[in-house]
Amino acid sequence: MGTGFDVVIVRYDEIALKSQYVRNRYERTLINNLRMLLDKSGARYTGITRERGRIFVHTMDERVIGLVPRVFGVVSVSPALTTSSRLVDVSGLAARLASAFIGDGESFAIRSRRAGSHSFTSRDVAVQCGDAILEEMRERGVYVDLTSPDHEIHVEVREGSAYLYTKIVQGTGGLPLGTQGKMIALLSGGIDSPVAAWLMMKRGCRIVFLHCNNQPFSDENTRGRSMECIKALEAWSPIGLKVYEAPNGGNLKAFLDCCEEKLACVLCKRMMYRIAIEIMKKEGAHGIVTGASLGQVASQTSQNLMAEAYRLNYPIYHPLIGLDKKEIIRIAEWIGTYTPSIGPGVCCTAVPDHPATRARINEVLRAEEKVGIEELLQQTLDRTRVVKP
Amino acid sequence: MGTGFDVVIVRYDEIALKSQYVRNRYERTLINNLRMLLDKSGARYTGITRERGRIFVHTMDERVIGLVPRVFGVVSVSPALTTSSRLVDVSGLAARLASAFIGDGESFAIRSRRAGSHSFTSRDVAVQCGDAILEEMRERGVYVDLTSPDHEIHVEVREGSAYLYTKIVQGTGGLPLGTQGKMIALLSGGIDSPVAAWLMMKRGCRIVFLHCNNQPFSDENTRGRSMECIKALEAWSPIGLKVYEAPNGGNLKAFLDCCEEKLACVLCKRMMYRIAIEIMKKEGAHGIVTGASLGQVASQTSQNLMAEAYRLNYPIYHPLIGLDKKEIIRIAEWIGTYTPSIGPGVCCTAVPDHPATRARINEVLRAEEKVGIEELLQQTLDRTRVVKP
Repeated sequence: MGTGFDVVIVRYDEIALKSQYVRNRYERTLINNLRMLLDKSGARYTGITRERGRIFVHTMDERVIGLVPRVFGVVSVSPALTTSSRLVDVSGLAARLASAFIGDGESFAIRSRRAGSHSFTSRDVAVQCGDAILEEMRERGVYVDLTSPDHEIHVEVREGSAYLYTKIVQGTGGLPLGTQGKMIALLSGGIDSPVAAWLMMKRGCRIVFLHCNNQPFSDENTRGRSMECIKALEAWSPIGLKVYEAPNGGNLKAFLDCCEEKLACVLCKRMMYRIAIEIMKKEGAHGIVTGASLGQVASQTSQNLMAEAYRLNYPIYHPLIGLDKKEIIRIAEWIGTYTPSIGPGVCCTAVPDHPATRARINEVLRAEEKVGIEELLQQTLDRTRVVKP
Repeated sequence: MGTGFDVVIVRYDEIALKSQYVRNRYERTLINNLRMLLDKSGARYTGITRERGRIFVHTMDERVIGLVPRVFGVVSVSPALTTSSRLVDVSGLAARLASAFIGDGESFAIRSRRAGSHSFTSRDVAVQCGDAILEEMRERGVYVDLTSPDHEIHVEVREGSAYLYTKIVQGTGGLPLGTQGKMIALLSGGIDSPVAAWLMMKRGCRIVFLHCNNQPFSDENTRGRSMECIKALEAWSPIGLKVYEAPNGGNLKAFLDCCEEKLACVLCKRMMYRIAIEIMKKEGAHGIVTGASLGQVASQTSQNLMAEAYRLNYPIYHPLIGLDKKEIIRIAEWIGTYTPSIGPGVCCTAVPDHPATRARINEVLRAEEKVGIEELLQQTLDRTRVVKP
């Protein structure tokens, strides 16, 4: 837009369905998140205001247009020029805007909306702006085409102001981060778990991460991949992300030493859940998030998932459960976690050649009793630390 | 394709990642599902064969091209013409095919692949087919453009046969229905729950439905909407779908009569889960599927979801948990459940004006004890029936 912009219009819609009370809370959270993300990124703006289902970021900084669509809850964004709601001002600005970006012989349409009380209709706005543009550009062969124009100029008149824009940038959608409860997300260092955490962040959940470090059955690279993924996810969060690291290699060794080898993966997952549940209670969180997707690998069977969750009492969310690997990779690429998640690293070497695909609940419970699961858990919790990603 | 087709090539890819044993089982299931769906729809075909990561449906029936992409596990589909792998036959067919659908002055490219042992390379195939087309159409201004051609002709030479096609139809993806475990899906009659069930079907799960009938707090229309949604989902299933119906109105009345009104929704959901768990055991299923999505309505808070699932021991899957309403509606429209799910019908009138958004687990457990939850469950199960959708 050759003539620049002085405001960025922010649209959100799922919030608009809520009751007035909830809506107010959601909007305030959204504005806070916008402010924190812009501040964190050093983008310049003079203020953020809210009016009738729209948020306005007052800015002339190009970076804002790139940053705001990433904020969860934002449906779309338009950099706009502001003027008063007087028709002569609106049509004058429309003409200046048009002559800067409509080419000779090209067609255009005015898309007008109006909110508030005015002495004119939105159709009047469209007609007067259209006339002003045709007049301004009368020697350049410009014409109106409402059906498939080369360019659209949007004019929104809201109370005493009018906003003109030509671009609608798609936002990420979802709900403002922090409007839903806190969740503990398991992070393995693979492709799937960061995507699962991101989807829950997108739905408004604050996420606390838990990385269970399987060394010596994995290596430092795998740990590094997890931390890089968290850094990538921080670009989506107005605040830094909290990470717990739990040593899990000793537990794996205990399972391999004294249980049937084929049960190792199920026992390991249950241990991770137990650790996560304790962190959940400490953090006042409401559930656990995993990257499990049915049937993607041999051990991700519905029977194993059932044995893994049995009697652990708290909700375990698998937001990828219905997605294909291709769909998961597409999201990972888009959110920036794909590259870090496929770096070098040793996959867990404790995984048996033939892991159980139909783990029996009774066998699993017996194995846990034999290995002394409560004591192992306590030892692990004693050595679980908050770390910097 | 003016010259018709004699085979439909079916591609699948996630299956190709599996071990030989699993892959064989998945491929057999996929072929069975294809066969059942085609038979159910009355489509004509002479056979289905499998070869090196491809399935071939031998048919000249146009309906097959529409049906096969809907089968879960199918990534893409191409109606093709078959000939021998002799280069002269391949290039001859390419020339006939091209002259039927390339217009005067248009460009084309040959995309060739080869599997098996031949005395020529895939490049030889491309060159010879290209030459044959240029020769056949030499007076019509046709030319080769490998970068952005008007038309692409795909040539796959596989052992003794060659397949020529011009069209790649996107399939639904996922895993063949029946390769993963069975799940019990709750079906309310709204937009979300059929989408949740469909996503699990797409990932290979056989689904058994449970409709909890809240009459007199809902009406016959709501029941009807659920059944219409199941019928729509049957179009995606090679076999008919099994449906249980449980009377839940009496339970709701008991909750309203003797518990705090604000807990009604949480108690109701827990009752549905209890019914589903009993059906799960009877059916040998491995989990429950719901249409819950965080924060979509007032009662869908993480705290309520936690209270709803507490101590019920079996996995509850919420495949929509990370999706926005818009995304859910888009899927519903595509799979055919949207229209039936928005028909007339009374939403549950037992929903209190101010349902709890932060249900406390202890309060919920106390209320269940007070109301005599086990006896209510038993009475409900006694009157739960398998019904026809």
